[in-house]
Amino acid sequence: MVIQERTQLIAEPMSQADTQQLAQTIDEALKAVDTTMYDAVDSKVTVLRDASRHILGAGGKRVRPRMMLLSYAALGGTNFDAVLPVAAAVELVHTASVVHDDINDHGVMRRGRPSVNAIWGRTFALLTGDYLFTQVYELMAPYGSEMNTILAAGTTALVEGETLQAAAVKDNNLSREIYFEIIGLKTAALFRSAAMLGSRLAGATDPVAEAFGQYGYNVGLAFQIIDDILDLIGDAEQLGKTSGIDVEQGRGIAVAYTAGNTPDNAGSSDPMVAIKQKLLQGDAIDTGRAQARQLVEMAIDALDVLPESAAKDELIALAYQVVDRDR
Amino acid sequence: MVIQERTQLIAEPMSQADTQQLAQTIDEALKAVDTTMYDAVDSKVTVLRDASRHILGAGGKRVRPRMMLLSYAALGGTNFDAVLPVAAAVELVHTASVVHDDINDHGVMRRGRPSVNAIWGRTFALLTGDYLFTQVYELMAPYGSEMNTILAAGTTALVEGETLQAAAVKDNNLSREIYFEIIGLKTAALFRSAAMLGSRLAGATDPVAEAFGQYGYNVGLAFQIIDDILDLIGDAEQLGKTSGIDVEQGRGIAVAYTAGNTPDNAGSSDPMVAIKQKLLQGDAIDTGRAQARQLVEMAIDALDVLPESAAKDELIALAYQVVDRDR
Repeated sequence: MVIQERTQLIAEPMSQADTQQLAQTIDEALKAVDTTMYDAVDSKVTVLRDASRHILGAGGKRVRPRMMLLSYAALGGTNFDAVLPVAAAVELVHTASVVHDDINDHGVMRRGRPSVNAIWGRTFALLTGDYLFTQVYELMAPYGSEMNTILAAGTTALVEGETLQAAAVKDNNLSREIYFEIIGLKTAALFRSAAMLGSRLAGATDPVAEAFGQYGYNVGLAFQIIDDILDLIGDAEQLGKTSGIDVEQGRGIAVAYTAGNTPDNAGSSDPMVAIKQKLLQGDAIDTGRAQARQLVEMAIDALDVLPESAAKDELIALAYQVVDRDR
Repeated sequence: MVIQERTQLIAEPMSQADTQQLAQTIDEALKAVDTTMYDAVDSKVTVLRDASRHILGAGGKRVRPRMMLLSYAALGGTNFDAVLPVAAAVELVHTASVVHDDINDHGVMRRGRPSVNAIWGRTFALLTGDYLFTQVYELMAPYGSEMNTILAAGTTALVEGETLQAAAVKDNNLSREIYFEIIGLKTAALFRSAAMLGSRLAGATDPVAEAFGQYGYNVGLAFQIIDDILDLIGDAEQLGKTSGIDVEQGRGIAVAYTAGNTPDNAGSSDPMVAIKQKLLQGDAIDTGRAQARQLVEMAIDALDVLPESAAKDELIALAYQVVDRDR
C-alpha cells in the first residue's frame, strides 16, 4: 500500500503530460546524453578521443539510456539534466563492450561504419574500450554508493556473460540453458541496471526499483533473442555490422536449440550455412520471436506497480519495439 | 596553521607506535588486501576466477596498496579493515592494466609465471582485464563520490598513458618530453591516487591530501624510470617478466634521451641490442638513476607537512626502496 501511494504521489505530474510532450522531452534528453558522452571522451590523447567519437558518432539505438530516462520519468522525475551522466554512463558500458567485442570477433563493420578495430588496430581498440570503461567510472563517481552498486553489477555481469559465451564456444557445450545464462548476463543485466537506475534516481522504494529491474531484465532478454535472430537472417548492410560473426560464436546454434532444433552440418560444409538453412526451414525463428514476445509481456506486467502515465505508455511501447524491429 | 594542527592531532597516536609494530600491522593488512582481491574475483565464470587468481597469485610488489595503507596510517588511521577494499581496488587497477598490457606487448611471462595471455589466449585475457576493472568498480562503489573521483582520475590517466606510449611508438616521435608525459600518466597518476586515497580516508584536508598526492606522484615517476632501466639491463629471470618488450616499445629510447643520449642502430641490426649497447657504454643508466633519486627526494620533501611518526618513516623508506631495488 505504501508503495502504491508513493508512486501515485510522485507520478501524478507525469500522468498529466501528454505523450507528445514526453516524446519531445526524451528526444531532447537523448541528444543531451550524446553530448555528455562526447564531452566525457574528450581525451587529450588524440587517438582515444577520435576512436571513442567514431563509435559514438555511428549512432546506435540508444535503447538503454532511453529506458533509463523513461523509468525516471515514469516515477515523476523531471530534472533530466541531473541524470544525463548516468544515462551516458550506461550507454558507455555498452559501447565499451562493443569495441572489445569487435576485437574478439574480428568484426570489421559496426553500426554501418568500419569498427574501431578495423581502423585503429587491435592495440588502440583495446585501449579505447578500456578508456570508455574509465569514463563510465568518472561519470558515475558523483552519484554515490547505491547508483554505483547498481551499475557495477550490470557491468560485471556483462563481462561475465561475454566470457561465458566465449567459453561455451571454445568448449563446444552451448545448450539452451547456457544460452539463457549468457544472454541474462551479457545483455539483460545491463538493461536491468538501466531501468533500476532511472527509478532510483526518481526516488523509487526497494520493491518499485525491483519491479523496474524485472521490466529491464525481461526486455533485455527479448532484445538479445531478436538480435541473434536478426544476425542469422539479416544481411550486413541492414544490420550495419559484420553479420554471421555471432553465428560463428554459436549464438545461432543456441537460438536454434530454443526451438528444439539441433542443426548439424548435413547438406553443407559450412556450419554457418547449415545452421541458417536449418533455421530457415524449421520454425526456430518463429519460436524465438514468440518467446521474445512472451518475455516482453512479462516485462510489461512488472510495470503494474505504476499508475497510468505517458511515460509508462512509452516504456510499454519501447518493449514492443524491441521485438518488432528489423535491425 | 590549521593544517598542521589537524595532522598533529590525528597523527599523535601513530607517532607513539614503534616501527616494528607498524611493520607488522601493515604486513597483516597487505595479506588481508590479497584476501580481499581473491574474494573480489570469485566469479561463477570459472575462467575469469582462475585467470584473475593466477595473476594475483603470482605476487607482485604490492607497492601501491602499501603506499595507500601507510598514507592512511601516517595521518592516524587505525581502522584498516574499513580501507582494505580501497587498497585492493588500487592494486586491481594496476593488475588489470598488466593483463591488457601483456596482450598488446605479446608478453608471455609476468611475475615469473606465464602471462594470462600465454595460458588462456587473447580473448580471455582481454575479458579478464575487463573483469578486473569491473571489480575495481564494485569494490569502490560504497566509498562515495570523493574517493571514486580520486581513483577514477588515476585509472583514466593510466589508460591515457598506455595509449600515448603506443601512439608515440607507432608515430616514432618519442622524446624526453613525451616520455615524461607517458610515465606521469601511466604510472605516477595511480601512485598519486593511492597516496591521496589513504590520506583522505584518514580525514586529510585538501592541502594535506595534495601533499600526499605530490609524494605519490614523484615516487611513481621514480618507480617507472627504475622499471625501464631494469628492463634494459635486467634479465628476464630476475625480473619475472618478458624482458626487452618495453625496449621494443621504445621506453628504452626515452630513458636514453633522459641522459642526453640518442641511440641509433649503428653497430647492430637489432635496435634493441643497439640501444642496450649504447646505454651500457654511456652514463645513461647512472643519469636515469640519479634523476629517480632526485624525484624521491622531492617526494619526501612533500611529507614535511607531517609530524614525525613510524608511518612517515616507512613512507620515506618506501620511496628509497623504489630506487634501490633490482627487480
